[in-house]
Amino acid sequence: MAKDKYHELVKHSLEKEGWTITDDPLYVDTQRRKVKIDLAAERLIGAEKEGEKIAVEIKSFINLSQVYDFYRALGQTLYYSMALEFVESDRVLFLAIPDDTYFDFFSEPITQEIIKRFSIRLIVYSIIDEKIVEWKK
Amino acid sequence: MAKDKYHELVKHSLEKEGWTITDDPLYVDTQRRKVKIDLAAERLIGAEKEGEKIAVEIKSFINLSQVYDFYRALGQTLYYSMALEFVESDRVLFLAIPDDTYFDFFSEPITQEIIKRFSIRLIVYSIIDEKIVEWKK
Repeated sequence: MAKDKYHELVKHSLEKEGWTITDDPLYVDTQRRKVKIDLAAERLIGAEKEGEKIAVEIKSFINLSQVYDFYRALGQTLYYSMALEFVESDRVLFLAIPDDTYFDFFSEPITQEIIKRFSIRLIVYSIIDEKIVEWKK
Repeated sequence: MAKDKYHELVKHSLEKEGWTITDDPLYVDTQRRKVKIDLAAERLIGAEKEGEKIAVEIKSFINLSQVYDFYRALGQTLYYSMALEFVESDRVLFLAIPDDTYFDFFSEPITQEIIKRFSIRLIVYSIIDEKIVEWKK
């Protein structure tokens, strides 16, 4: 399945940069609701490097509607950010997206404004080169 | 289809309160992308009353996973809010949700915190009484 491949690709790309994958999936306990996301292989993962802890939400954006994929990615990212603030505030959340989506959909003014306004941190990965091409913090 | 019923129910509930439905669906032009939402009958509508203009995103929350429904609703609401800021900043956006969802999922601390942090305005509607039971501005 394509989404699984993307998931593994991002994990390996992080490892190439010296990160250790500590949690796959990463569970974030939000009081009443344990957020367990493995539906459609879109799991949140946890990684560490030199004392820095991150959570990565890996998105493939392979559905027909990019805007629909974006609605869910945005909502999910903000929900996770809030959940992490509650339970593990030293872990920083990144949304990982493919480079073609980054240069296409994410270059639109409205998308850029949303990313800026809500301080969404991005990891841009290349499917062809199998590596991370940009960190947007 | 259930979603269509909810859509009509909210429209009629607004009319009962003296609103005129001006746009169904409401199109919001976001520069490159014309946001046209009629997939699964989850259309944005426009309404007016005494010079006040609103946009209403009607959600049924009838899927199995409330948290997944919420991700999309949240992302979509923030996207529309931004789009309206760009093109029609005097129109105020509301997210319409059923009362059972409001008293259940939306009462969780994390959901409440998100609603507050991102200033999401809600219309809570009753399916049984076929009317709006609360406006949360």
